Amino acid sequence: MSDYLNLVALSKRAQMIEGISALLGWDQETYMPPKAAPVRAEQKKLLAELSHELHTGKEFEKALSGCINLENGRFLVPDLSEDQKACLRVWRRDFLRQKKLPSSFVQEFASTSSKAMFVWEEAKNGNSFQLFLPYFEELLDLIRKKIDLLGYEEHPYDALLDEFEPGATTTLVDNLFKQLQLALPRLFAEIIARQKNYPELDISPPLPLHEQKMILHALLNDIGFDFQRGRLDRSAHPFSEAYHPDDSRITCRKEPTCICDEILTTLHEAGHSFYEMGLPKEHVGTPLGQAISLGIHESVSRWWETRIGRSLPFWKFFYPKLQDRVHGELSGISLEQFVRTLNRVKPSLIRTESDEISYSLHVILRFQIEKELIEGKLQPKDLPERWNSGMKELLGVEPASNKKGCLQDVHWSMGAFGYFPTYTLGNLFSAQFFEVFSHHHPDWGKLVENGQFDFIRNWQQKEIFRHGRRYTSFELVEKVSGKKLSCEPYISYLFEKYNNL
Amino acid sequence: MSDYLNLVALSKRAQMIEGISALLGWDQETYMPPKAAPVRAEQKKLLAELSHELHTGKEFEKALSGCINLENGRFLVPDLSEDQKACLRVWRRDFLRQKKLPSSFVQEFASTSSKAMFVWEEAKNGNSFQLFLPYFEELLDLIRKKIDLLGYEEHPYDALLDEFEPGATTTLVDNLFKQLQLALPRLFAEIIARQKNYPELDISPPLPLHEQKMILHALLNDIGFDFQRGRLDRSAHPFSEAYHPDDSRITCRKEPTCICDEILTTLHEAGHSFYEMGLPKEHVGTPLGQAISLGIHESVSRWWETRIGRSLPFWKFFYPKLQDRVHGELSGISLEQFVRTLNRVKPSLIRTESDEISYSLHVILRFQIEKELIEGKLQPKDLPERWNSGMKELLGVEPASNKKGCLQDVHWSMGAFGYFPTYTLGNLFSAQFFEVFSHHHPDWGKLVENGQFDFIRNWQQKEIFRHGRRYTSFELVEKVSGKKLSCEPYISYLFEKYNNL
Repeated sequence: MSDYLNLVALSKRAQMIEGISALLGWDQETYMPPKAAPVRAEQKKLLAELSHELHTGKEFEKALSGCINLENGRFLVPDLSEDQKACLRVWRRDFLRQKKLPSSFVQEFASTSSKAMFVWEEAKNGNSFQLFLPYFEELLDLIRKKIDLLGYEEHPYDALLDEFEPGATTTLVDNLFKQLQLALPRLFAEIIARQKNYPELDISPPLPLHEQKMILHALLNDIGFDFQRGRLDRSAHPFSEAYHPDDSRITCRKEPTCICDEILTTLHEAGHSFYEMGLPKEHVGTPLGQAISLGIHESVSRWWETRIGRSLPFWKFFYPKLQDRVHGELSGISLEQFVRTLNRVKPSLIRTESDEISYSLHVILRFQIEKELIEGKLQPKDLPERWNSGMKELLGVEPASNKKGCLQDVHWSMGAFGYFPTYTLGNLFSAQFFEVFSHHHPDWGKLVENGQFDFIRNWQQKEIFRHGRRYTSFELVEKVSGKKLSCEPYISYLFEKYNNL
Repeated sequence: MSDYLNLVALSKRAQMIEGISALLGWDQETYMPPKAAPVRAEQKKLLAELSHELHTGKEFEKALSGCINLENGRFLVPDLSEDQKACLRVWRRDFLRQKKLPSSFVQEFASTSSKAMFVWEEAKNGNSFQLFLPYFEELLDLIRKKIDLLGYEEHPYDALLDEFEPGATTTLVDNLFKQLQLALPRLFAEIIARQKNYPELDISPPLPLHEQKMILHALLNDIGFDFQRGRLDRSAHPFSEAYHPDDSRITCRKEPTCICDEILTTLHEAGHSFYEMGLPKEHVGTPLGQAISLGIHESVSRWWETRIGRSLPFWKFFYPKLQDRVHGELSGISLEQFVRTLNRVKPSLIRTESDEISYSLHVILRFQIEKELIEGKLQPKDLPERWNSGMKELLGVEPASNKKGCLQDVHWSMGAFGYFPTYTLGNLFSAQFFEVFSHHHPDWGKLVENGQFDFIRNWQQKEIFRHGRRYTSFELVEKVSGKKLSCEPYISYLFEKYNNL
């Protein structure tokens, strides 16, 4: 058992170092003086080296090989508990994956993407895809090299997906996304036609930043966010960062925006935070104390943002409070008008500003393009054209510039290929979870209307959070719902919701 | 040279880890959610282990022994630059000191003082010295053990002083403090008698916290504090924390207090911050990029707090601004009345609330008591009585309770013996520096009156900051002033100041 205990100790140490790095990241986005950026980068680099050594070094390999056969995954120690077996499986998986990427490659990738991110920002500001193109090509070459190093069974893109959503395959995503593509554009067009009957109302009362923050604080208190174990601060882009169930922090925007957007965003980030706060403390530092995947994380955050934050019951509870706090600015708008406006559908150029219907269409386009690039069917130089025609086809709009098109966000310049599908997978997971949840809590709307939220978190705690990485996302969905992941609950939800609005 | 380069690399790495720990400490006092305290303690413990290993481990010892003879300090590498020799001297000094304390002792000390700090808080709240006594005795035993491990030439207390003020000896401090003790109580009594002619005025206009902070921000901007490389936040007790010249942060109190106190405190902390921001960036991670000692740090902070912040020229500049910002609350008080009130002398029970005259008397008492405890002339159980009679003798006041007496602050429970003298040494250093400074800048008062402060920082930069730890504090004072450290500049300053008030 000494090998196992050693693994636990190394894993805890590594996770503590990663946690410290996460806190440094939080500070960087919230309070760090701007000129400290280069020093911060060095600090994070040092911590990354330390944790990488702990995860992949000789000591870890020796201890791991003593407990589990690295080649075939057979356990080598008698009388392991189920918890221990689950940890060993994840450790082996992560170890084998990390070992395939030599540090020279990891460093080259980091330095290339860091250059590309820098140039991307310039290219975006100057609306010049040509400026970005050579860096994008260089990155793509490295992505292909990464795929070769990692290996795959069916499709090269599988190697990338697996990083963010273990167990996901291109075939699986392709099938799911094709169904969405059949259903959503039609629904989208229908709703847009129907919406013409309702004028668009202004639900953005101007509010000073500190009053916005007071509303968000009150909201977080209402939904049971524990300020003894978390915080709300401001940053350029909202995010959630946690390194322990007892320290999980979220941010709202530091520039004034529409309070309704901020409320939805805060619910979204609170969802991420609930997940982290709900991970079992006794397993901190081992895989059973970690979140499963980006997709499952997103399923919780989207749940709070869309299933709660965009719902009528929630606003029955919160709209009077909001009206109070905006000094009568919303007094001319009824609850029903407000909720309808909040859920108004609109072709948008950017995922982060999109409604629930077009959200996945953005993701689908990104997935298609990434796949075509990896398959060699699309040349990097043709990206803008492909992007624009894809937008036209899927969303019916075309960006006036690459700045609002294929250069719109940082992901590609970071080299984060295979990441985007998790956004939509998160919505699918969420819908499938919610179906079971609402079966257990048919009165959920009534409870939310009365300002009760604990039962939601408790359910998520019991069904999702407490498991850590005991299951993959696909296993968990099946365990919770008794069914394999499908698009059906998500599509039904959207149809039903918009038919009732 | 590879040994030398290796030393630099290890030292940089260790200092980076200590810097990360410093940032974690800053977060703990400013923004950390309360329930994260135990996790934070574990994170800091891990970082302390990592940096200790880098500083004292085999790799460091091997590299150091390759460059300098550990026994006699002779250099073993030809053609070392003066910078390199200075670094090697400090590395050797620190290494030999740290090696004398085995980690079992360091751990025992840490756990005993952590218990003692916990009990001290309870003892203080309950005003029960008896509760604290056994822990205090245990700590004292450990302090004696520490002295034995470290060794000393003349006086056991030297071993303790040397930690905070390298090169300081008990004899030296004793001599200086005796001179202060001859001069200050007499001056103190004279001023108190003279003050009777002037009624005490109220210069504490009530102000909401955010308005206080705006004033402090404006003040920091006026004196040239670089917010691109620093911050002002709030904490229970004001402090300054820096880990790099490009990230140096200070705090003001989070509970409302007198704005004048906050201004002086902020100037004090800004002084610490200026020192850290002024350390030469090219030497970050080596001794030449570090501050010399607590005493020199304090000389800069007290300079800004007392020589600037309590001066007439400063208030000629800042008083009108302050009056503006407190909504006319100070309009009935003239500049001269204001400055006289700010400098009013009063027997106080606590150093942190004391005027410039009695400040050192508090420190002297603490030094006397520590020395007597170490020499075995005073028994721990007799501490309260000794404290009270000392207060009576030196300051003419006696605390009504141990809470306001020997239990007043955390230092002893932390095991920080030998620390207090640096507060007064700082004032002596400061006065001796200022004598030279004012000789170079006889018009300093006029400049300050006009809101010019850069020339002060520039002088400090040139004479103090840029040297890092090239010299000990005593060497630096002699280099700058051409004279050995003495009390004369400090005593003259106080006599002159109070004669002119």
